[in-house]
Amino acid sequence: MILPHSALYTDFYELTMAQGYFLSHKEHERAVFDYFFRKLPFNGGYVLFAGLADFLEFLQNFRFRNEEIDYLESKGFEKKFLNYLRHFRFTGDIHSVKEGEVIFPNEPVLQVEGNIIEAQIIETLLLNIINFESLVATKASRVRCVAPDKLLYDFGLRRAQGLGGMQASKACIIGGFDGTSNVLTGMMNNVEISGTMAHSWIQSFESELEAFRTYASFYPDSSTFLVDTYDTLKSGIPNTIIVAKEMEQKGQKLKAIRLDSGDFAYFSKRTRALLDNAGLNYVKIAVSNQLDEYLIKSLISQHSPIDIFGVGTKLVTSHDSPALDGVYKLSAIEGRATLKISENVEKVTLPGCKTITRFLNADESFNCDGISLCDDTSYKFIQHPYYPAKRTQLNGFKPERIIHPVVLKGEIIADIPTVTESAEYAKQRLSQLNAEHKRFDNPHVFKVGISSKLRRLRDKLMLKNGF
Amino acid sequence: MILPHSALYTDFYELTMAQGYFLSHKEHERAVFDYFFRKLPFNGGYVLFAGLADFLEFLQNFRFRNEEIDYLESKGFEKKFLNYLRHFRFTGDIHSVKEGEVIFPNEPVLQVEGNIIEAQIIETLLLNIINFESLVATKASRVRCVAPDKLLYDFGLRRAQGLGGMQASKACIIGGFDGTSNVLTGMMNNVEISGTMAHSWIQSFESELEAFRTYASFYPDSSTFLVDTYDTLKSGIPNTIIVAKEMEQKGQKLKAIRLDSGDFAYFSKRTRALLDNAGLNYVKIAVSNQLDEYLIKSLISQHSPIDIFGVGTKLVTSHDSPALDGVYKLSAIEGRATLKISENVEKVTLPGCKTITRFLNADESFNCDGISLCDDTSYKFIQHPYYPAKRTQLNGFKPERIIHPVVLKGEIIADIPTVTESAEYAKQRLSQLNAEHKRFDNPHVFKVGISSKLRRLRDKLMLKNGF
Repeated sequence: MILPHSALYTDFYELTMAQGYFLSHKEHERAVFDYFFRKLPFNGGYVLFAGLADFLEFLQNFRFRNEEIDYLESKGFEKKFLNYLRHFRFTGDIHSVKEGEVIFPNEPVLQVEGNIIEAQIIETLLLNIINFESLVATKASRVRCVAPDKLLYDFGLRRAQGLGGMQASKACIIGGFDGTSNVLTGMMNNVEISGTMAHSWIQSFESELEAFRTYASFYPDSSTFLVDTYDTLKSGIPNTIIVAKEMEQKGQKLKAIRLDSGDFAYFSKRTRALLDNAGLNYVKIAVSNQLDEYLIKSLISQHSPIDIFGVGTKLVTSHDSPALDGVYKLSAIEGRATLKISENVEKVTLPGCKTITRFLNADESFNCDGISLCDDTSYKFIQHPYYPAKRTQLNGFKPERIIHPVVLKGEIIADIPTVTESAEYAKQRLSQLNAEHKRFDNPHVFKVGISSKLRRLRDKLMLKNGF
Repeated sequence: MILPHSALYTDFYELTMAQGYFLSHKEHERAVFDYFFRKLPFNGGYVLFAGLADFLEFLQNFRFRNEEIDYLESKGFEKKFLNYLRHFRFTGDIHSVKEGEVIFPNEPVLQVEGNIIEAQIIETLLLNIINFESLVATKASRVRCVAPDKLLYDFGLRRAQGLGGMQASKACIIGGFDGTSNVLTGMMNNVEISGTMAHSWIQSFESELEAFRTYASFYPDSSTFLVDTYDTLKSGIPNTIIVAKEMEQKGQKLKAIRLDSGDFAYFSKRTRALLDNAGLNYVKIAVSNQLDEYLIKSLISQHSPIDIFGVGTKLVTSHDSPALDGVYKLSAIEGRATLKISENVEKVTLPGCKTITRFLNADESFNCDGISLCDDTSYKFIQHPYYPAKRTQLNGFKPERIIHPVVLKGEIIADIPTVTESAEYAKQRLSQLNAEHKRFDNPHVFKVGISSKLRRLRDKLMLKNGF
């Protein structure tokens, strides 16, 4: 992942607060921050956690360079603080769920513990990377969910939100896509790259036939003809058949055709019939244009004979939910648990250093999650965070700790998985999530409860703060 | 702008097509491509063009480096083509509207002319940058439109689409924002950076009062207190008043308070009254949380006494229209005009090398735009692109050419404006666009016509291609 490895990739207030902590001699105070999101995107039932590898890579390179120090000096920062920044390194601990984990609202899935300055100063960076990569990985997994046996490619770079396209392409793979058109992502992450041809290729030749013939001569094993430049059924497909037959004479096989406009249910069926009638049943049909999980689901339910989906804009921009609302909240300082009160009781945060246990059914599927204080892991039931009378007994379920140490004293101690490994993990975890939580319409809410000890701590602090 | 200056930041098909052009000895054929968008975002009436400076910077650094060549070799590209890429430089011409120009659907606002390989190979890059920066600049200008006299800051980096946040922050300034929380964008573009404090600052102290007091001691001229950590009216504002009065004793003035939750119309009025009663009428009120142009418009129409708006997620992700549908289409090759036919007549492209003339009313406001062939600029009327009977006579209007050469033979010949200069230009141009085109609900459609010569060329080519 190419990133601007600059410590100034942050919000200004992180730096003014950091200087404030420094000048008030709090720089050695030990703080714990939680990353969690509140609202499920896409009105869906889960989120796939992604972005950890990119975040850790950035963290390892998190330095204030001379020109950056000079800039901050010009903004009025004090010399002794700037000297501190000159030698700044992240030296704290990070506990996190794995990249590709299935997560749910309000779970503290990533926790940073360190001195208050280092833990504060990485907030923006962490949120920027984790929020977006998790969002797109989740979107991609929804597409995969409706098309388990199809080839899925990310074609979104041209409409991606600028450089975010690099992260989007990567997240698509984690969410279950087979490959991407984004060559740089392909190179950096060793994932499959894919592409066909543009209308300009066809237009640049005197005739569509010549354009197809020429392309096939250079790519006899991997040609996909774009058939809708002039007229799909009257020109694109007839010319395809001519060239595919010529290829057969040379012992070659045309790989696929691509439809980029029109009604895909109609055109894919008509095209399939024409190709089959010509004995070209091996030629695959690819489609692209404004696809998302809903349209693909509809096309499949209409038995459209489509083999390959190129998904672009709506995937990489996460069009119907373009942001994940992940936040980063202080939950303890110097051993003192803290919380943020809100008018809205559902926005009151969970205090203290916490962990998450996932409880599995006998068939390894997920039953529920429990959030508890780190030193309180033998609880027998969980309670609804806001309606404590709602309880779930935990006997009979297999507990699994899903939070693991990944950074200790600034050093990465966990293996950083490759994109392909994270994709494998996501696939496995999604298979353990029951179908009703993956449903698009009114998905069943996955049960996440808190231990009674955590609940009592929260209630005590709320009272203390006058709630 | 930090960018991955890699020529592999592209779609795979650009490279397979480029090799195809090379192997079919078309590499000297002269091509013209048009950039244009089709659908106005936000159901709005215009788009602000942005991203040109970043695109040109990238183009100047567009090289295939050794490791990239090696990667392409591993993907099966041929040695002689890879040797060509080793020495590849963009040597073509680019004509474009200025950064900050007001543009409309189907206008070829940026045109690239060069050999077919160089003109093709930069497609993805161009679309990725121009589409996104134009989108966010447009969104930002809509916010500015409803709040002409307010201070507007971009606070979006944490929820931006990954690294796209860098471009989003820049585009916000072009669209009329006063500053950004994004420090790196501030440094790189010499624009104002802004920030307040987070809830964690408050929570890290034993009391809110101590947190405010400590912050004020370090930032006596620039403190903005976040007042909603515990209870805005019962705690945040009373503590603010205590500390602001203490500051007055030292000859200091608290700058502002920030509300980050609750009903802003209600809380801003209550807060203003409390501050004013305490003689703190100079303390400004800032708000942030899920703001967009509609909410800000509503708050202003309710006479909410808010001075500063911090706008985040919905701005930088362009939440209600997260992508601009800009495309890049071949319009001529070797002097032969080309077009792409579509089932949908509105998607048939305009052939040939073209220019755009803007026609101004006597008061310098924009009346209409005309698209014509480059050698046809003395036309007397424009026609509706799809309903040619609809004509507009042009006598009496002042013509202004809005397309200018920016790159000739690969060299940038235009001055690249700073972000601030582009923002100034955008402001001026928006002031020339009548209010009915800037309206949010059912904006009046700005008239864009084509010359009769261009229409005849298009119709001839459509007939020839069997439409």
